[in-house]
Amino acid sequence: MAKKNAFYAQSGGVTAVINASACGVIETARKHKDKIGKVYAGRNGIIGALTEDLIDTSKESAKAIAQLRYTPAGAFGSCRYKMKSLEQNRREYERLIEVFEAHNIGYFFYNGGGDSADTCLKVSQLADSMGYPIQAIHVPKTVDNDLPITDNCPGFGSVAKYIATSVREASFDVASMAKTSTKVFIIEVMGRHAGWIAAAGALASDEDTEIPVVVLFPEVPFDRAKFMEAVDEKVKKFGYVSVVVSEGVKGKDGKFLSDQGLRDAFGHAQLGGSAPVVANMIKEDLGLKYHWAVADYLQRAARHLASKTDVDQAYAMGKAAVELAVAGKNSVMPTIVRKSDKPYKWVVGEAPLNKVANVEKMMPKGFISRDGFGITPKCRTYLQPLIVGEDPPPYKNGLPQYVRLKNVGVPKKLADFELK
Amino acid sequence: MAKKNAFYAQSGGVTAVINASACGVIETARKHKDKIGKVYAGRNGIIGALTEDLIDTSKESAKAIAQLRYTPAGAFGSCRYKMKSLEQNRREYERLIEVFEAHNIGYFFYNGGGDSADTCLKVSQLADSMGYPIQAIHVPKTVDNDLPITDNCPGFGSVAKYIATSVREASFDVASMAKTSTKVFIIEVMGRHAGWIAAAGALASDEDTEIPVVVLFPEVPFDRAKFMEAVDEKVKKFGYVSVVVSEGVKGKDGKFLSDQGLRDAFGHAQLGGSAPVVANMIKEDLGLKYHWAVADYLQRAARHLASKTDVDQAYAMGKAAVELAVAGKNSVMPTIVRKSDKPYKWVVGEAPLNKVANVEKMMPKGFISRDGFGITPKCRTYLQPLIVGEDPPPYKNGLPQYVRLKNVGVPKKLADFELK
Repeated sequence: MAKKNAFYAQSGGVTAVINASACGVIETARKHKDKIGKVYAGRNGIIGALTEDLIDTSKESAKAIAQLRYTPAGAFGSCRYKMKSLEQNRREYERLIEVFEAHNIGYFFYNGGGDSADTCLKVSQLADSMGYPIQAIHVPKTVDNDLPITDNCPGFGSVAKYIATSVREASFDVASMAKTSTKVFIIEVMGRHAGWIAAAGALASDEDTEIPVVVLFPEVPFDRAKFMEAVDEKVKKFGYVSVVVSEGVKGKDGKFLSDQGLRDAFGHAQLGGSAPVVANMIKEDLGLKYHWAVADYLQRAARHLASKTDVDQAYAMGKAAVELAVAGKNSVMPTIVRKSDKPYKWVVGEAPLNKVANVEKMMPKGFISRDGFGITPKCRTYLQPLIVGEDPPPYKNGLPQYVRLKNVGVPKKLADFELK
Repeated sequence: MAKKNAFYAQSGGVTAVINASACGVIETARKHKDKIGKVYAGRNGIIGALTEDLIDTSKESAKAIAQLRYTPAGAFGSCRYKMKSLEQNRREYERLIEVFEAHNIGYFFYNGGGDSADTCLKVSQLADSMGYPIQAIHVPKTVDNDLPITDNCPGFGSVAKYIATSVREASFDVASMAKTSTKVFIIEVMGRHAGWIAAAGALASDEDTEIPVVVLFPEVPFDRAKFMEAVDEKVKKFGYVSVVVSEGVKGKDGKFLSDQGLRDAFGHAQLGGSAPVVANMIKEDLGLKYHWAVADYLQRAARHLASKTDVDQAYAMGKAAVELAVAGKNSVMPTIVRKSDKPYKWVVGEAPLNKVANVEKMMPKGFISRDGFGITPKCRTYLQPLIVGEDPPPYKNGLPQYVRLKNVGVPKKLADFELK
């Protein structure tokens, strides 16, 4: 087999550790110079491939690539661009393969969630039928932890650690103030469909440090009266409570809590979050003083507080992807396989992409407590090891020092292509 | 002089390092057993003194007290309880002194901001006139950095580090997404009157890591058109922008931006933050996709990311307070005196309380850039050293391990006292 180049792209929402996967891909590819030529990255994700806007990662020093391991977000740019189905836009898939062929690319590493696993699979299938075979390997990434088969997804552990730590710290704060002031602290977290991140908020409380936490999961329809009972009970018992509310919580009417039809003074519709909505309800129903926070991008960008387990796994997935490719595999995704909970042990496995694409892993029913406001011991056992370990970045002048790559472009060989 | 006990209380909003000051007070008092008996702490701040609800800190081990150095929030509880003027409620001040006399308290260490400096001063004056002299020492604390004379306030440096780091991390995130998705990230920060914390957001960008940041200060009346120009210009140049908006930003009409008369579907008034208001304006005027975060308590509780400079200074202020007391001083506050910017050098000074009480230190005019949306080099020189250094807490199972004290009560000796 003639030596082929590799293509790597980041897809969808970025994370604190997706660059650690990029680091794993590039460092490992550099060790297999006999089989892999250059690693090209897509500028702004798959759009970079479609528009032939490729980055030559061979122009980056070993040091710069090593720094990716502790740099959050997407070093080559990501995108929210879902390729349509083969039937709807076969031309796009063909274009991808033309670009790959033009740049002698034989390996396609796509770092993303469920949608990108699907794209990855289709590229491989179509390439084969077009007579230009591509080994397509998906590298798992999603803060939402919703990919199937793999025990967990790189990106999630660090968000979980950030949210658990933040809830613990803010709870110490509100506990201090509760006698005369704030009694309820509310934090809104990501997770529009699955409550994995919300569940992590419950880790703030453990055997050593008990903290009253009420979690609102997207899986549980919001029941205002029951929720107020839970809040009131905790405040009566502990003097304060912390509420973790997922952005994806819906009322019994199926509408997002955050979609409350807010209007400004001029009657214009205003978008809010679920945290202020819950805060206002608590004020109306219980008359308690509250504070609320919306973590938003902070939670998924907080590399300074990344979970070492997560960083290690993100790197391992990138490394394994290249090793699978070198071993001749195609249409697969490396996975994290849990061997034991205590002590936590995991190994790298693999899954065929047709089992991964378009399957969303929800929280198992047995992970949410009976009252709907907390996690079960089983859930805790699952989540706990994922947040373990610290892996701080270097600091300079008081701030984390993250790398910015040169991102030198590869000369184009094809005619322009217009995105639909 | 017979050996007297000491009283210590935490006042107002807590910080990531106020317990480091408590640690400094208690550890130093324990070294002066010849002059200082026990250190009693007020449960929930000054309310603990008024209701004779005292905590005996001598029941805490040396290890537990040492752990205060890295534990956020108020270990003894704080309160928002502003004592009225002497004329309005002389009885409260007399009660304080009765409690102090009943428990042989000769030292009053009050850890707070401008209000508590004022209370501290009055207690000292009245005690003197009542023939039961108290040495009253104020220990500076406020995330708002608005105390006069001292170069900066313990608590501020850690918030500044948290906000600067968060803006940097979220900016890496939005930069990755900007091609096809979010182009504007907005973070709301504390500081209702002074823009110190907002200014710290601008530190996210430095020589090594340029980041487009637009700051909205409470000192600068909000000009929607000019702001949109600034945002638009940055997005055109960099592809994205981060906006740091103070909770205290007001429009030209003098009303808080956050007070936009929001109504829910039923017409009920809803409280929001300034971040979602600014986000909605950007959508209306520029049509750009945004994300917004509200840091709220996270910013002042984030001990995991505390500034080592801040921790050291907080401890030093507590230590100095006791040393001033032992040296016979009264009605004073230890201060931080800056000796040089580069290298940053500081020493402990002192200020008379009558120069501190009820004076609010605003951002100097020369600290805000001419366009009103950034900081000047002078401001950067001032802020930069305050965020330097890391001082992480110990972690267990992936989470910071913070101490909870036993907080054993002191038997009461007086009749009950009802707070007005």
